[in-house]
Amino acid sequence: MLSTPPISQQNPLWQRIQTSLERQGLMTHLGTRLLRVEKGLVELALPYSDKVTQQQGGFHGGAIGALADIAAGYAGLSTLADDMEVVTVEYKINFLNACRGGELRAVGRAIKTGRRVIVTTADVVHIDETGQQNPCAIMQQTLASVPKTY
Amino acid sequence: MLSTPPISQQNPLWQRIQTSLERQGLMTHLGTRLLRVEKGLVELALPYSDKVTQQQGGFHGGAIGALADIAAGYAGLSTLADDMEVVTVEYKINFLNACRGGELRAVGRAIKTGRRVIVTTADVVHIDETGQQNPCAIMQQTLASVPKTY
Amino acid sequence: MLSTPPISQQNPLWQRIQTSLERQGLMTHLGTRLLRVEKGLVELALPYSDKVTQQQGGFHGGAIGALADIAAGYAGLSTLADDMEVVTVEYKINFLNACRGGELRAVGRAIKTGRRVIVTTADVVHIDETGQQNPCAIMQQTLASVPKTY
Amino acid sequence: MLSTPPISQQNPLWQRIQTSLERQGLMTHLGTRLLRVEKGLVELALPYSDKVTQQQGGFHGGAIGALADIAAGYAGLSTLADDMEVVTVEYKINFLNACRGGELRAVGRAIKTGRRVIVTTADVVHIDETGQQNPCAIMQQTLASVPKTY
Repeated sequence: MLSTPPISQQNPLWQRIQTSLERQGLMTHLGTRLLRVEKGLVELALPYSDKVTQQQGGFHGGAIGALADIAAGYAGLSTLADDMEVVTVEYKINFLNACRGGELRAVGRAIKTGRRVIVTTADVVHIDETGQQNPCAIMQQTLASVPKTY
Repeated sequence: MLSTPPISQQNPLWQRIQTSLERQGLMTHLGTRLLRVEKGLVELALPYSDKVTQQQGGFHGGAIGALADIAAGYAGLSTLADDMEVVTVEYKINFLNACRGGELRAVGRAIKTGRRVIVTTADVVHIDETGQQNPCAIMQQTLASVPKTY
Repeated sequence: MLSTPPISQQNPLWQRIQTSLERQGLMTHLGTRLLRVEKGLVELALPYSDKVTQQQGGFHGGAIGALADIAAGYAGLSTLADDMEVVTVEYKINFLNACRGGELRAVGRAIKTGRRVIVTTADVVHIDETGQQNPCAIMQQTLASVPKTY
Repeated sequence: MLSTPPISQQNPLWQRIQTSLERQGLMTHLGTRLLRVEKGLVELALPYSDKVTQQQGGFHGGAIGALADIAAGYAGLSTLADDMEVVTVEYKINFLNACRGGELRAVGRAIKTGRRVIVTTADVVHIDETGQQNPCAIMQQTLASVPKTY
């Protein structure tokens, strides 16, 4: 597993991920925030709101999946040269507990950066309004690296 | 694979799924529409907008995953008694092509309704502004049936 | 989905897959047979024996997974030029019913052959001693194409 | 994650898993050995031989998948009462490196033991003839607990 000390918000790698995140209509719309960046590790937060719920009022599996997808995607991106970016080939997510209120935190990790594909994981934890943490979901993902075109 | 003729919007099964869909803050917010309901099959549409994009302007994998998740989830639900509902245990999705503009259509299918879990699939197709269709994603999912509590 | 008429055992594509299968110690050891080859579709059979069982005497999930893996892998291979072969990036399999006696048949299909990765599926069916068929498992898989080196 | 100190081979939990493993025709046939048992964690070894190879002479993905499947399955089993056992609902495995010679070691871990399903993971590492370790595969799995019937 690739992982190094956290970097500051002034670091070009942080800027690169922050800029990409701001280009994501879905995730900015839902209120996603960048919390931590290391080489091979990215942490994101998603606050609870009526934009992220399913029919019972909990966080929607689709929102949890989207958060895990990009946390792991950016973890993969953080291991690549500046002129590359990643596309998600596939992911698989298991939901561990229903989660309501508070916010979600997803930690994505690059497990293996190969020539063809990058394998990553994400752990999503729920933090309720009192600060209590509970496992929410785990994900395993495959990315492909592609030349950046924008 | 369980599948029967489409039912009308006046049918209680359509109403049951439509009502559940309207309770999903995430999906109503993104503009999801119910297109077709059979026993064991549900089709949904998601229009393109700046609420569903990733950093390159295409449909976000998270939005595609959410659409596939609920199409398959409702397909599973359509095989259960009225006092039951489903929770997503896990899903795995492969992305086949980048998709931009137009809308997505997801067809969820119940493959096996067992006592403990329900196995489903979803096929997501992209339809661009000219009506051209292109495969977008395929998903395989596990649901659990639980008593309805609301 | 790519699929064309079945080809004969004299066809070079059949030979190519048959030769590769015979090189697989695990699968020849378990008694796997090639049943059908088309461009984008391969069917294999695995007979029941005490070499493929789990603790309750049914087909082992690992044997079912191995059969699905190679049926889908050869389906992907059948879409590539002769000097290429495939490696499995990942797969995900759902088990639908316990299966005992008789044999398994797995049909692998190439869903999308891209430049970087190939997406495939496999359906595994159990046929008991009386000829009765029952769904056994479904699989979704990602392959990478690599130059053949042997 | 559930995990406690290793237990001895005289412990009833070790015996329970060892007895179950010996009933698995596939895995005993391939030479699988039980290395470590804790509540929520099980480690297994699979030696290289011509019974476990694919067409290039490396460990077959099917053998790797089978090993990961049962390491995680027994990790799940180790969290249940004596009169229960587990069935695999589904698993998803990513292959990280080609592995040849030596042996594989798979560590399965129970992540969440729920009323309906158990979520587990497995890490598979390759150890070559010189003792050098290399990541081989990671797996994410869903089990169901069922009454023991034999």
